[in-house]
Amino acid sequence: MPESVAKRLRALEDREAIRELIARYGPLADSGDAAGVAGLFAEDGVYAVGGMGEAKGRAAIAALISGPVHQSLMTDGCAHILTSPVIELDGDCAVARCHSIVFRHEDGEWAPVRVAANRWVLARGAAGWQVARRDNMLLDGSGAARLLLS
Amino acid sequence: MPESVAKRLRALEDREAIRELIARYGPLADSGDAAGVAGLFAEDGVYAVGGMGEAKGRAAIAALISGPVHQSLMTDGCAHILTSPVIELDGDCAVARCHSIVFRHEDGEWAPVRVAANRWVLARGAAGWQVARRDNMLLDGSGAARLLLS
Amino acid sequence: MPESVAKRLRALEDREAIRELIARYGPLADSGDAAGVAGLFAEDGVYAVGGMGEAKGRAAIAALISGPVHQSLMTDGCAHILTSPVIELDGDCAVARCHSIVFRHEDGEWAPVRVAANRWVLARGAAGWQVARRDNMLLDGSGAARLLLS
Repeated sequence: MPESVAKRLRALEDREAIRELIARYGPLADSGDAAGVAGLFAEDGVYAVGGMGEAKGRAAIAALISGPVHQSLMTDGCAHILTSPVIELDGDCAVARCHSIVFRHEDGEWAPVRVAANRWVLARGAAGWQVARRDNMLLDGSGAARLLLS
Repeated sequence: MPESVAKRLRALEDREAIRELIARYGPLADSGDAAGVAGLFAEDGVYAVGGMGEAKGRAAIAALISGPVHQSLMTDGCAHILTSPVIELDGDCAVARCHSIVFRHEDGEWAPVRVAANRWVLARGAAGWQVARRDNMLLDGSGAARLLLS
Repeated sequence: MPESVAKRLRALEDREAIRELIARYGPLADSGDAAGVAGLFAEDGVYAVGGMGEAKGRAAIAALISGPVHQSLMTDGCAHILTSPVIELDGDCAVARCHSIVFRHEDGEWAPVRVAANRWVLARGAAGWQVARRDNMLLDGSGAARLLLS
């Protein structure tokens, strides 16, 4: 295989893998798969959720899903929506940016209870692409949230 | 072409084709193209819409679009939003999972009147990738809807 | 590199580049990067925003972002959501269709204040893919908006 073909295939596959990794978050979260969500992250990955603190490591991230806030959301009915990310690849590292929306069900209606900016730092390890850090901040007029997208 | 290159190109093209197939649903539905929506499905494809029964075959699926419920949505103004799917490829078959949101317009505002889990079973035939079955269930706290995403 | 491989890689890369170009709009708009938004468009690109007139050329497009309507949105908190587009490639030209939703924050809640159909005409120039024209029309029951998606 010519080197140029290998390099171009690899770049396409990397972008596809990262898009898939991010797309998996919503279905895993909404089906309550705490281990699955944690497994998107590296062992020492960090998930900083705007207004809800910072979870460091897979056990802490799994606890976000198995904890009372998320379980209450699931009982009511919820959807964690993520938009198709903008991806900057740099060898074995990448940064991706996208929006997220959490819809919560109540009395036959759904409300967008969180609309947020997301910045993902990703790294390729032995197990493939994983999330090193996800920062999530509410788009409520805060300049810090806008910075995540720039 | 080396076999490995052919295989990797094919996988990338398959994922692209499936993403495109699913992305076509929203614009076809919102422009009222009943034949176009039906044509995304195999001849004997099934579309099970949460709370609205199961349409089997292209004629039944087209009737969902040309029928009074969908036509009333279009008259008011609607948007059928689908998120970028998680795709599991297995040769000539695939399973994809994503969320869907239907927005309905009323008096200058839009409301998310359906927020749902979707599981697509896809198959490659002579005419390329088509939908064999789409299950759609409202994310209203039901365990069955959550299962579609897991 | 065999011609067939080059052609298939090119098609995959073109679709990826166009998806990325469209995905960049939301984060650029929500971070207030007027030059960045304008740079998605060709020098003489056109952005026709339903209900808000037509901006021709990069200076006019940048003015949409730096102008009072968009700045007020950003001060309140906003998210410009775009769905994964359906892309028709034709050599150095392409047409893409998707939905867009603008969420506006107010008093701890978000409302979908614009839900729209989008048709993008894209062209490949010396600087890569750029937007030649984006038409955006509110999905408020108008037949013209539906036509953009068909």
